[in-house]
Amino acid sequence: MKELNRMKTSPMEWTIDLNSDLGESFGNYVMGQDEAILHHVTSANIACGYHAGDHNVMRQTVRMAAEQGVALGAHPGLPDLLGFGRRYLAVDPEDVFNMTVYQIGALQCFAALEGKRLQHVKPHGALYNMAGKESAVAQAIAEAVAAVDKELILFGLAGSQLVKAGEKAGLRVAREVFADRTVQSDGSLTPRSRPEAHIEDPEQAVCRVVRMVKEGKVTAVDGTEVDIEADTVCVHGDDPKALAFAKGLRKRLEEHGIGVCRIGER
Amino acid sequence: MKELNRMKTSPMEWTIDLNSDLGESFGNYVMGQDEAILHHVTSANIACGYHAGDHNVMRQTVRMAAEQGVALGAHPGLPDLLGFGRRYLAVDPEDVFNMTVYQIGALQCFAALEGKRLQHVKPHGALYNMAGKESAVAQAIAEAVAAVDKELILFGLAGSQLVKAGEKAGLRVAREVFADRTVQSDGSLTPRSRPEAHIEDPEQAVCRVVRMVKEGKVTAVDGTEVDIEADTVCVHGDDPKALAFAKGLRKRLEEHGIGVCRIGER
Amino acid sequence: MKELNRMKTSPMEWTIDLNSDLGESFGNYVMGQDEAILHHVTSANIACGYHAGDHNVMRQTVRMAAEQGVALGAHPGLPDLLGFGRRYLAVDPEDVFNMTVYQIGALQCFAALEGKRLQHVKPHGALYNMAGKESAVAQAIAEAVAAVDKELILFGLAGSQLVKAGEKAGLRVAREVFADRTVQSDGSLTPRSRPEAHIEDPEQAVCRVVRMVKEGKVTAVDGTEVDIEADTVCVHGDDPKALAFAKGLRKRLEEHGIGVCRIGER
Amino acid sequence: MKELNRMKTSPMEWTIDLNSDLGESFGNYVMGQDEAILHHVTSANIACGYHAGDHNVMRQTVRMAAEQGVALGAHPGLPDLLGFGRRYLAVDPEDVFNMTVYQIGALQCFAALEGKRLQHVKPHGALYNMAGKESAVAQAIAEAVAAVDKELILFGLAGSQLVKAGEKAGLRVAREVFADRTVQSDGSLTPRSRPEAHIEDPEQAVCRVVRMVKEGKVTAVDGTEVDIEADTVCVHGDDPKALAFAKGLRKRLEEHGIGVCRIGER
Repeated sequence: MKELNRMKTSPMEWTIDLNSDLGESFGNYVMGQDEAILHHVTSANIACGYHAGDHNVMRQTVRMAAEQGVALGAHPGLPDLLGFGRRYLAVDPEDVFNMTVYQIGALQCFAALEGKRLQHVKPHGALYNMAGKESAVAQAIAEAVAAVDKELILFGLAGSQLVKAGEKAGLRVAREVFADRTVQSDGSLTPRSRPEAHIEDPEQAVCRVVRMVKEGKVTAVDGTEVDIEADTVCVHGDDPKALAFAKGLRKRLEEHGIGVCRIGER
Repeated sequence: MKELNRMKTSPMEWTIDLNSDLGESFGNYVMGQDEAILHHVTSANIACGYHAGDHNVMRQTVRMAAEQGVALGAHPGLPDLLGFGRRYLAVDPEDVFNMTVYQIGALQCFAALEGKRLQHVKPHGALYNMAGKESAVAQAIAEAVAAVDKELILFGLAGSQLVKAGEKAGLRVAREVFADRTVQSDGSLTPRSRPEAHIEDPEQAVCRVVRMVKEGKVTAVDGTEVDIEADTVCVHGDDPKALAFAKGLRKRLEEHGIGVCRIGER
Repeated sequence: MKELNRMKTSPMEWTIDLNSDLGESFGNYVMGQDEAILHHVTSANIACGYHAGDHNVMRQTVRMAAEQGVALGAHPGLPDLLGFGRRYLAVDPEDVFNMTVYQIGALQCFAALEGKRLQHVKPHGALYNMAGKESAVAQAIAEAVAAVDKELILFGLAGSQLVKAGEKAGLRVAREVFADRTVQSDGSLTPRSRPEAHIEDPEQAVCRVVRMVKEGKVTAVDGTEVDIEADTVCVHGDDPKALAFAKGLRKRLEEHGIGVCRIGER
Repeated sequence: MKELNRMKTSPMEWTIDLNSDLGESFGNYVMGQDEAILHHVTSANIACGYHAGDHNVMRQTVRMAAEQGVALGAHPGLPDLLGFGRRYLAVDPEDVFNMTVYQIGALQCFAALEGKRLQHVKPHGALYNMAGKESAVAQAIAEAVAAVDKELILFGLAGSQLVKAGEKAGLRVAREVFADRTVQSDGSLTPRSRPEAHIEDPEQAVCRVVRMVKEGKVTAVDGTEVDIEADTVCVHGDDPKALAFAKGLRKRLEEHGIGVCRIGER
């Protein structure tokens, strides 16, 4: 992982992981098109019952992902089902540590039932964002992951506190990028509230990912060239358009000589 | 486990496990006197966040129990915090299987953080009662426990469906008795609604336990002599009186030549 | 209400209310096609945050229904979001009374914000079924409704304990029938588990409703003629097919000379 | 209300309201000594099921308070039972408006059952603090209260945004002070993290309240004299010491010629 993708010379040695948030249904409530998106991604971030998901959904999602050969990851979130874990909540680091352990533990057990181990952990929503900026939250998550299993790969926004905390905790980290989001000159994501935050054109989105993988560069909204390391790309699967994009992205990446494979196999 | 206690001839070979429900606080709500009761029991049934407990309480309880050398067990319950898991809820067997896996998984992870493995699983409240009578529920729990870890000991009411299902699933089972509750001629607990359900006199309660351990017998409310196998006694710790009883019970059992030790060490 | 529909002689004096369960989304989870179904029904049963719905969904649903001129009703359920209020839960009558008051109170307040009063109360799912058969549950609900507002109309399955309890509590009741469900010779719904429980043919469903309204009769699954009083018909709106049926039912009823109007205006 | 207490010349015309947070038990979890504290306060802030309380606790608390002649108030909180509503949560103003309406509505209904109307609304914990500083949150709460019932009195920290928003919404407001907390030179509470935040000496606490009521002044931690209007004093009832303080405060206030009466009767 330490050798950058761009240093690889043989074309097919460029690789990228595609991950997606899954298992976010709850009871009678259905969310996402999990079965369909599983055909296009290599890593599944599975909700663990806090921001979404429940024990029945978890079992079913783990099974489906395992059958499709998609790597299993825990997707722990804040205990806020009403807000889908997307709202900032003032949690202290010890609380973050414990909620991370709890959620990984629960999912781990379902993975074991299918004879699988978890590959990774990716925090969800507000917890992901908080861990990107607040070092205490990032550290609590990284330490929880390391305490549970040193082999787990920690997913965090490329350049974020979470990636740093993961490395400090001795974990392998996967730097995540977003195909459909722009970045600012410091490498952070442009806030969603800004009009230039999203990339609407699928082909432009593909090209950005290709360049991030092959050159380790991305052009920020102000035109600056920013260094970026991309290990995994987040792909949405909540509507037909998102599904089509995921499918297309994978095809186009392969056409550009970028192998799509689970992070744990790189 | 198959050899009955009563077959043992050397006095100090009689042994019994004392278990108590712990970790049932939630957020700012405190329940029970966990620290105190841990001095008197050998097995801790730790709530897993469904009927009671939360990730912070679980971690603290696991730590305290581990420090005291008390064996750790999962105490999975129905997802009914408002009813404290004591209300019958129509859950189907697959749901029971999954909620049991989820809760054991979460607790297991906290145990591993302390370098411990779980010794046992004891369902809580309505789930315990349902598992005692409904074979489908009993089987779902037993299979979930076996699927997670074949070494886990399943606690169930002596003579119940849960004990049978545990044996059928190839698990070691611990037959639980209650010091302060009377039984009916078929061995089942006298319903709490009946005046003769409870034994108020501590000394009488002790004598019953001693006889169950040494002779494998208990006198039912109608005077019938009932065969009973007692591997573990449930002890409450929610008020000073209960604590005093727990303390006294342990002392008196030892005076009667019954060793008190964790079920996993028998 | 006491004069039966079938005693009315002038054709257009036959009337029926069409009701539907609404506002069952929760946070980011969307359920049902509320906006569309509101065009076809006259009474809205709005979830109150226990089995489904939340304060934001409630406000929006109350507003939409009020704008469409659809009568507002509370749809209180069991506190079981995971099970969508469809699972039997052992709740005691006082608990039922209080949860009914709480939920009506919350919805009432949103109705008042739009300058409206609630027209009715219809319990949801398992609570509805329990209230249909258990007189203590039925009485607790009826007394709660009467305690909150004597003018509220209580919806219950035609012939059920809930209807009886409502009448005893001095409430106006609306006897509910289902267009797509068969009945048994005692007037009760055929359990969903039986193959003959559902009526698939829309035209057959319409004819049954027409006959229930005009003649006060329905043919049970064993061929018996059963007396039935129908004040309101439950209509689903969760998928395009259900929506089409609701739309068609209204049109066909009117063709048969049955006016569709809210129960409170009959 | 606009005439300040200190302008009153006849000694017994000085009055103050004593309020306490009540009804914060949940299911089997008991919190506070509600029955005892009700003897010492004049206004009860009753939890509404979000941060604490449930429909059974609400009914019982409303009844007890009504029997004791204590004025009833809604104590709406954030939907965070695990954090007891004390953790900042990023809620948007519309969400705050709706959660406030919901909670007042539910409690109002229990009050009506006892033939009472609510006197006031006091937000709880983090919602109270957020409303004290963020004008958008303050406005959402004030508008929700005004939309439900223009006669409701809004409780807010003296000098806070909530008090301003309440006045702007045309509500009567009650400016709340804390007997056991120091203030800074700008009138805000000294953060709890600072050693000088709390006043341990009961007599000193009493004297401060007396001076706030009679002179409209309080000495800040840096020695500055700060103007303060005190309409109601918050009193805790969670332990025997707090109870003793509440009892003593009332007695001492009366000895100082300050009548203790519910805010709605001033």
